[in-house]
Amino acid sequence: MLLPLIEARSQETTKSTAERLGYPRDAKLLIVHADDLGMTHSVNVATIKAFESGLVNSGSIMVPCPWLSEIATYARANPQADLGLHLTLTSEWTQFRWGPVSSRDRVASLLDKDGYFRLTESEAAASADPKQVELEIVAQIEKARALGIQPTHLDSHMGTLYQSKALFEVFLRVARAQKLPVRVAKAWFARADFLPSVLSPDDVYIDRVLDINPTVAANDWANFYSDAIKKLEPGVTEIIIHLAYDDAEMQGATANHPAWGAAWRQRDFEYFTSDAFRKLLQEQNIKLITWRELGKLIK
Amino acid sequence: MLLPLIEARSQETTKSTAERLGYPRDAKLLIVHADDLGMTHSVNVATIKAFESGLVNSGSIMVPCPWLSEIATYARANPQADLGLHLTLTSEWTQFRWGPVSSRDRVASLLDKDGYFRLTESEAAASADPKQVELEIVAQIEKARALGIQPTHLDSHMGTLYQSKALFEVFLRVARAQKLPVRVAKAWFARADFLPSVLSPDDVYIDRVLDINPTVAANDWANFYSDAIKKLEPGVTEIIIHLAYDDAEMQGATANHPAWGAAWRQRDFEYFTSDAFRKLLQEQNIKLITWRELGKLIK
Repeated sequence: MLLPLIEARSQETTKSTAERLGYPRDAKLLIVHADDLGMTHSVNVATIKAFESGLVNSGSIMVPCPWLSEIATYARANPQADLGLHLTLTSEWTQFRWGPVSSRDRVASLLDKDGYFRLTESEAAASADPKQVELEIVAQIEKARALGIQPTHLDSHMGTLYQSKALFEVFLRVARAQKLPVRVAKAWFARADFLPSVLSPDDVYIDRVLDINPTVAANDWANFYSDAIKKLEPGVTEIIIHLAYDDAEMQGATANHPAWGAAWRQRDFEYFTSDAFRKLLQEQNIKLITWRELGKLIK
Repeated sequence: MLLPLIEARSQETTKSTAERLGYPRDAKLLIVHADDLGMTHSVNVATIKAFESGLVNSGSIMVPCPWLSEIATYARANPQADLGLHLTLTSEWTQFRWGPVSSRDRVASLLDKDGYFRLTESEAAASADPKQVELEIVAQIEKARALGIQPTHLDSHMGTLYQSKALFEVFLRVARAQKLPVRVAKAWFARADFLPSVLSPDDVYIDRVLDINPTVAANDWANFYSDAIKKLEPGVTEIIIHLAYDDAEMQGATANHPAWGAAWRQRDFEYFTSDAFRKLLQEQNIKLITWRELGKLIK
């Protein structure tokens, strides 16, 4: 019984994710994904506004953050929305902090001396006990479900859960148990060589992830994204964006950190709700898909 | 040795708090106190701005709230500021929540099913185990000190710690151990008859507390406060105010709750930083004092 099964799987893995979804191999499929929901009111309101434009079609929620209840209210009222969980093990701003969902004394390895998550993904990964990571991310998923959020996918805030094989194994084990797809891109295999060894053909992953970075000047913002979309390769791409308004709350939250700051997020909001972006998607024959479709591939 | 001590105390208690502070018995002494620091960026920024006016001269900090770090930064840079702790056992807004500083499994009686503090002071008081209350409020004080806040006084968000004799005893025991004065007004003795029996002559308390309430119409705001200040009785009065800007963050945080909402707090900000208020203090010969002075009476 074993050999035929292996053969079947082997055949299946020759199919691209686009083909597994029922699209031609050369289809350009795009998820326009807003991170950091729940972080602030500004992020929630701007992202919900962008969802309403139909151009941003997916997002993920930070369960430990103070504005979780607001986005949970949205999720309950919009069960069709493609909302995942942005599993959170860092608290990266200095004037505005958050900590774990689980009891602090059970996840001490994840916390700084003030009881918050650590500032950076590398500090977080260096000190995290994988068992405590599992406890905390399961608690985040359970809390989201208790609030009526039905997550369609999982990803990792600041990529903490991709920092080591041990952490990624925890992440994948939890995701498989929950039958949820995880943000993993084939394009990452080169720089995180543990990925292909840990993934199985049954896991669902996309081809690549696109995001802007702090080397792009503010006045090149639209050009950067438009160029990237014009050059989009066939297969499943996720473009990861960060939406908020450049308002007092967001300026305060991200004070002294222009990267991923308030103005940055306002620029993302403007581009991804623009007619220029809508037109480009049509011109380039790009089809928007969601993690909900990808999740249906999971057996 | 016992009798003379008792006599000395008895003589001392005939002195009013104003006299113990070195003022004449008929002096009108006022603390202008802003609650809820740390709650939001809007509260922090508006209150700091009001402190700079010199007319608002005291405030208290909510340690469990997400913007604690921002106000702790201010406290470290302004060690002369009269900042106390607004000990917090409720999380009263529905879209924006917070929970305990201590490990959740040690303070389960304080939490709702989602792991946040309860919405109302009566629910909080009804279910709180006094031992867990003590653990949590001590943790809040210790966390504040660890962040470089040197509190000058303690009070209780939404008055939860005055809801029963058992809770007030915990509050007073912790305050005495910390040698910090507690917001208690002689005028409260009639409606909380356990207060005089629990307090000792060594405890420092003020004569009365003034605050506005939801029956006052928005366009009567300034009149209400100006009338109250014109009628101010001799002794120590604390006027409790809530400062923030009527901005998107604050509107989101207090959504569907006009009482103590964003516009309410903007009105408080406008009155208590106004020239009209400054002039009235002078005209009425009212002297602003702080909890720091009151704290010096504690042996």
